[in-house]
Amino acid sequence: MRCDSRRLPLTVGLLLALLATQTLFAQTRQEIQIPDISGYRTLKCDFHTHTVFSDGAVWPTVRVDEAWREGLDAISITDHIEYQPHKADVPTNHNRPYEIALPRAQALGILLVRGTEITRDTPPGHFNAIFLDDVKPLDTEELLDSMAAADKQGAFIWWNHPDWKPDKKGWFDIHTTLYEKKYMRGIEVVNGRSYYPSVHQWAIDKNLTFLGNSDIHAPSMLEASTPEKHRSMTLVFAREKTLPAIKEALVAGRTAIWFEDRLIGLPKYLQALFEASTEVSDINYMENGSVRFTLENHSDVPLDLERTGKLGPKSIQVPPHAVRLIQARVPSSESPHPFEYVVRNYLAAPDQGLAVTLEIPAQITIEIEVETEAQN
Amino acid sequence: MRCDSRRLPLTVGLLLALLATQTLFAQTRQEIQIPDISGYRTLKCDFHTHTVFSDGAVWPTVRVDEAWREGLDAISITDHIEYQPHKADVPTNHNRPYEIALPRAQALGILLVRGTEITRDTPPGHFNAIFLDDVKPLDTEELLDSMAAADKQGAFIWWNHPDWKPDKKGWFDIHTTLYEKKYMRGIEVVNGRSYYPSVHQWAIDKNLTFLGNSDIHAPSMLEASTPEKHRSMTLVFAREKTLPAIKEALVAGRTAIWFEDRLIGLPKYLQALFEASTEVSDINYMENGSVRFTLENHSDVPLDLERTGKLGPKSIQVPPHAVRLIQARVPSSESPHPFEYVVRNYLAAPDQGLAVTLEIPAQITIEIEVETEAQN
Amino acid sequence: MRCDSRRLPLTVGLLLALLATQTLFAQTRQEIQIPDISGYRTLKCDFHTHTVFSDGAVWPTVRVDEAWREGLDAISITDHIEYQPHKADVPTNHNRPYEIALPRAQALGILLVRGTEITRDTPPGHFNAIFLDDVKPLDTEELLDSMAAADKQGAFIWWNHPDWKPDKKGWFDIHTTLYEKKYMRGIEVVNGRSYYPSVHQWAIDKNLTFLGNSDIHAPSMLEASTPEKHRSMTLVFAREKTLPAIKEALVAGRTAIWFEDRLIGLPKYLQALFEASTEVSDINYMENGSVRFTLENHSDVPLDLERTGKLGPKSIQVPPHAVRLIQARVPSSESPHPFEYVVRNYLAAPDQGLAVTLEIPAQITIEIEVETEAQN
Amino acid sequence: MRCDSRRLPLTVGLLLALLATQTLFAQTRQEIQIPDISGYRTLKCDFHTHTVFSDGAVWPTVRVDEAWREGLDAISITDHIEYQPHKADVPTNHNRPYEIALPRAQALGILLVRGTEITRDTPPGHFNAIFLDDVKPLDTEELLDSMAAADKQGAFIWWNHPDWKPDKKGWFDIHTTLYEKKYMRGIEVVNGRSYYPSVHQWAIDKNLTFLGNSDIHAPSMLEASTPEKHRSMTLVFAREKTLPAIKEALVAGRTAIWFEDRLIGLPKYLQALFEASTEVSDINYMENGSVRFTLENHSDVPLDLERTGKLGPKSIQVPPHAVRLIQARVPSSESPHPFEYVVRNYLAAPDQGLAVTLEIPAQITIEIEVETEAQN
Repeated sequence: MRCDSRRLPLTVGLLLALLATQTLFAQTRQEIQIPDISGYRTLKCDFHTHTVFSDGAVWPTVRVDEAWREGLDAISITDHIEYQPHKADVPTNHNRPYEIALPRAQALGILLVRGTEITRDTPPGHFNAIFLDDVKPLDTEELLDSMAAADKQGAFIWWNHPDWKPDKKGWFDIHTTLYEKKYMRGIEVVNGRSYYPSVHQWAIDKNLTFLGNSDIHAPSMLEASTPEKHRSMTLVFAREKTLPAIKEALVAGRTAIWFEDRLIGLPKYLQALFEASTEVSDINYMENGSVRFTLENHSDVPLDLERTGKLGPKSIQVPPHAVRLIQARVPSSESPHPFEYVVRNYLAAPDQGLAVTLEIPAQITIEIEVETEAQN
Repeated sequence: MRCDSRRLPLTVGLLLALLATQTLFAQTRQEIQIPDISGYRTLKCDFHTHTVFSDGAVWPTVRVDEAWREGLDAISITDHIEYQPHKADVPTNHNRPYEIALPRAQALGILLVRGTEITRDTPPGHFNAIFLDDVKPLDTEELLDSMAAADKQGAFIWWNHPDWKPDKKGWFDIHTTLYEKKYMRGIEVVNGRSYYPSVHQWAIDKNLTFLGNSDIHAPSMLEASTPEKHRSMTLVFAREKTLPAIKEALVAGRTAIWFEDRLIGLPKYLQALFEASTEVSDINYMENGSVRFTLENHSDVPLDLERTGKLGPKSIQVPPHAVRLIQARVPSSESPHPFEYVVRNYLAAPDQGLAVTLEIPAQITIEIEVETEAQN
Repeated sequence: MRCDSRRLPLTVGLLLALLATQTLFAQTRQEIQIPDISGYRTLKCDFHTHTVFSDGAVWPTVRVDEAWREGLDAISITDHIEYQPHKADVPTNHNRPYEIALPRAQALGILLVRGTEITRDTPPGHFNAIFLDDVKPLDTEELLDSMAAADKQGAFIWWNHPDWKPDKKGWFDIHTTLYEKKYMRGIEVVNGRSYYPSVHQWAIDKNLTFLGNSDIHAPSMLEASTPEKHRSMTLVFAREKTLPAIKEALVAGRTAIWFEDRLIGLPKYLQALFEASTEVSDINYMENGSVRFTLENHSDVPLDLERTGKLGPKSIQVPPHAVRLIQARVPSSESPHPFEYVVRNYLAAPDQGLAVTLEIPAQITIEIEVETEAQN
Repeated sequence: MRCDSRRLPLTVGLLLALLATQTLFAQTRQEIQIPDISGYRTLKCDFHTHTVFSDGAVWPTVRVDEAWREGLDAISITDHIEYQPHKADVPTNHNRPYEIALPRAQALGILLVRGTEITRDTPPGHFNAIFLDDVKPLDTEELLDSMAAADKQGAFIWWNHPDWKPDKKGWFDIHTTLYEKKYMRGIEVVNGRSYYPSVHQWAIDKNLTFLGNSDIHAPSMLEASTPEKHRSMTLVFAREKTLPAIKEALVAGRTAIWFEDRLIGLPKYLQALFEASTEVSDINYMENGSVRFTLENHSDVPLDLERTGKLGPKSIQVPPHAVRLIQARVPSSESPHPFEYVVRNYLAAPDQGLAVTLEIPAQITIEIEVETEAQN
């Protein structure tokens, strides 16, 4: 309905292009509410997506529209260099996905990073390189040549879905080489609906930047039929919402991952996210030796707390943007009380939640000496 | 993640193709519950969709996957012959969308109809031709030549979105020609989110088959963010679920349209749908001169009834698959009562709902003469 | 807003009562879709609820309105005989909840069973007696006197929430007495949001009727904020939808329990429910040595299947009213294939799903000898 | 399940009471996001609710639990003085609902206002009096005596649902009397699901405080099955979250009403709410003579804007907490542009939306004279 015949003059063509854009204008964007931390902006990013230019099923502009609707700040289209199953119908042209998507990204304020997926048998497996100027020089016979070509352009490179093939997974010599040459500076701890605990440990041990990406091939909403209603993504703690700031943060390792109902990252970032996401208020010491308070969750990520200390209920769940009322017996109202918990769904290490303390201050005693008759 | 390098042997390529299919296997289909009528099956069809092969944004297989998930029985991919804005990247090949989508359609049991959109300035506008053997012969300079080529293949042809361009709309001589030559046998009373009342009247007056299609360009779920959660579609009342049966029904005009919360069609089909969708039960005459009964709606289409007679509440709404309790004063319990209503969202003509009668029988008096002591 | 001053004549009072009923008329009922089995109707029942007449928080009519809205067929209001925390404001009157709720139940077609909860320290704990004519005679000092009074009225009696108090739970002599005297003929395997595996085993071993009830005290929707969106209930397989038929089925032990996403009951009933809920169709043997078919779930209860045999995918999930496409390698197409699974969420015993077999027939070869030219 | 027998010692009774409270602790509160304005806190209040103590269907504590869950700050239970249909089972005791509900309100931080409904034939109709010390003195034969008794206690009084009885509605002499005596200082422009345009006009003309209340009788979630998913409520713009501050604001007329998807109030309050709820950003002048910007809605109330000026799209809808992208042709980029709209769902008067202007500044031209080579 949005097109017209080949005999139309140019201006009509423009009009039609505008009409096509209208669909997007009828959409709304839902901002993701995960707070900024430590003076950085928390940018929501997906650096691994595909289009019809390799084995994906959508036109490049769709990736931008989806990103805008879903509240993302930055994406990269990373079509395979070596694997082009639609080649007979869509001739290989490595830079086209970026070029096609860019005007739409600019129109919508989505930061678009030029990238690609270097695709080899496992091992070594697949790698994404982003912040490229030109994808073509990476189309080489030898993997190391491709890496060198990317590195020459100042690319940020990471290892994709290392556990994808269970029977061939592992850290091989080639990975050590890529790591030591500083080609490989990050790793996908999460890819799509998979979380890899052993890769999580590698990321910690080797100080690799944590990446979590969707790796979507189909239309986003088709794949995202999870109850969590969001795609896997990398949270980048950037100085500002610009491409250079994202690159700086990736190199510095300032990221965490939002996967299903879990946050995955280094303890320092998870701790900052917890503090920025929660609020204790309405503290009330009662006559029966209990204290009552509310715990509010300002974030889109739920909270699943389990008691590790002696105070407080055994477990506390707080859905996104909800308030939970908590009541617990305490030894006295005259000293502050640390309620010690582990946030089970904030993964500070494989199978290990984040240790947190809800600090409940002592009862405030206001002494009012005179003029009590003036009270209401 | 579902691919691999170019150096893989053929068997691995097959494996990868299978893996790609897995995504679909992880999806579920939701059947549409609109009942069969009058000995015909009510097939849910969308005969107007686009892909990257003209101005759409998805790969042809996506149209099949969407159709399967959304409970459709049959679709056609109808890319424009004349308008190919992606031509630089996806060279023109009119039969490819069908060829690419067919294996997936066969795998999923979706009936795929080969079709195309003949695209001219308005007037005359755009026309869909389906049930083609080969699209190429329709790529002609003159519209009538294209129509003749389609007709020669036994195509079923209709006029798309006649009111699309408000300043150029209308029934022109060319339409009379197409109609009299029996090329044009149907018309889109509904296209996407638009319903055209004046076209509805034409369809009635000229005995044209009612068509309602999505005309989707973007991924289906992206566009289908309406509260109704379904795309516009044609309900085809077919002898069986086969392509020849669909064609026979289209030629015979046995269709209706599901648009938002409305059904649009000839009164005889709407009447049959109403009867098959509703059930009156638990009729109960009460001592205060009222009768009470329930009205159940078995269909996915809500019911919005407005009283036209003297009996019953002023309006009755029954959501899909819900039961409504109705109580109304009646003159007596000894005669049957016709509750006369108009179903406002079943459009029998522009701005005119379907007249229906809920027949409430008289109170059944069971006279039991003897052995009353045997009752429980 | 629905009332008026004390000086109104009687007819206005009636009018106001009618107006109060109107709210209910604005509600809709959602039928629960769990199929009938083995010639019996599957009635949805909750035989354990409370009102302000003991420690509940709603007026008796609310229990009926909730039941109607939520698709239940029968309920009992079972206020505590001995525990009346609102007594100062609502003087004890054991039969009042039933009397107040009855007209509404009759109006809405809800079967209302007169019942009560006999409430003693644990052990022995609490017991429900239903199908009573008068609750008062059960208000006795001694438990056995109360039981005898109920039994004299032909009551059906069961043990409520046996595991309620973890430190005092267990089967004591008093339970043996009640069981041997045939007072206690059923047991709550499920109460509210709790399922008791050890009680499940008792029910099997002692041939006690399986009961699952909500035991709601607050308004139903307030408590039912579970993701499953239904209350715990007893499915009664009754000859017809009448009170005597329900009693006959309870005595005969023909019940199962719907708890969260699980069905709990004797294997014969679960087997029948599985067969009535599922449909295998579109069986298709493919050239690559696989068979493909669809599995449809007609019920509101999801299906969670795990493979126990050699054929088929490792696990299969089918949401309510959805269709899943299944593809699996098979040794040949010339013999039928039993796909052996356990339905993990149909609990045939504690921690033990129901064993089922999806029978996939061999490929049908239709030999057509003559007149092949007549084919379409 | 939460109770025990009458022979339990006192401590067990306490334990049981605590257990009953646990249900509430399992609930979560959803804060309502309608912003504070003009230095005042926007408190969400419902000053008209019923319990079993008159013609409602819930125990008083239920009203508090519902309020907490639904994000309210303050409520009043206003049972009828004169209409007590449950009197036979719940003897009249005007102050009991407040007394029963108060401990729970204190536990949950809900401000509970003691109130009642003075209930007379129409006309004059019904009136709520809140901020009472004792309800009993209002139980008088003469309406004016009841009003005087309330006034003596410093009550705030308003007229409830003036249009409730269509055939008897209107402003009568008695209303003038109540108004002139300054007994009646507010009026329900909204009651439950009804909005009264003519009463809206009275409120404006006579400078009466705008009230919108639920008047719920059934459990809140039972009645609140509207798509809007919130009850009708009064937004009180108070100096702080205390009872005296609410009273001061009611007397001063600082309120608005949230009804379905509409806000209703004096233009000055609606204007402030609009400004606090919306944000224009990402302003971008384009080469084709258009400007593009985003409009974000921070509030739970949607925005439905219709163009009244010359610039901008004809209509703009922004769902709660969503961002809309807007693009419009402008005469130049060198001057600021006022986009003039009316917010159709912010009712400044009957059938009259709020006039607003989106101020889009001129393009900012940053002149950088030297060192352009330093740019990235």
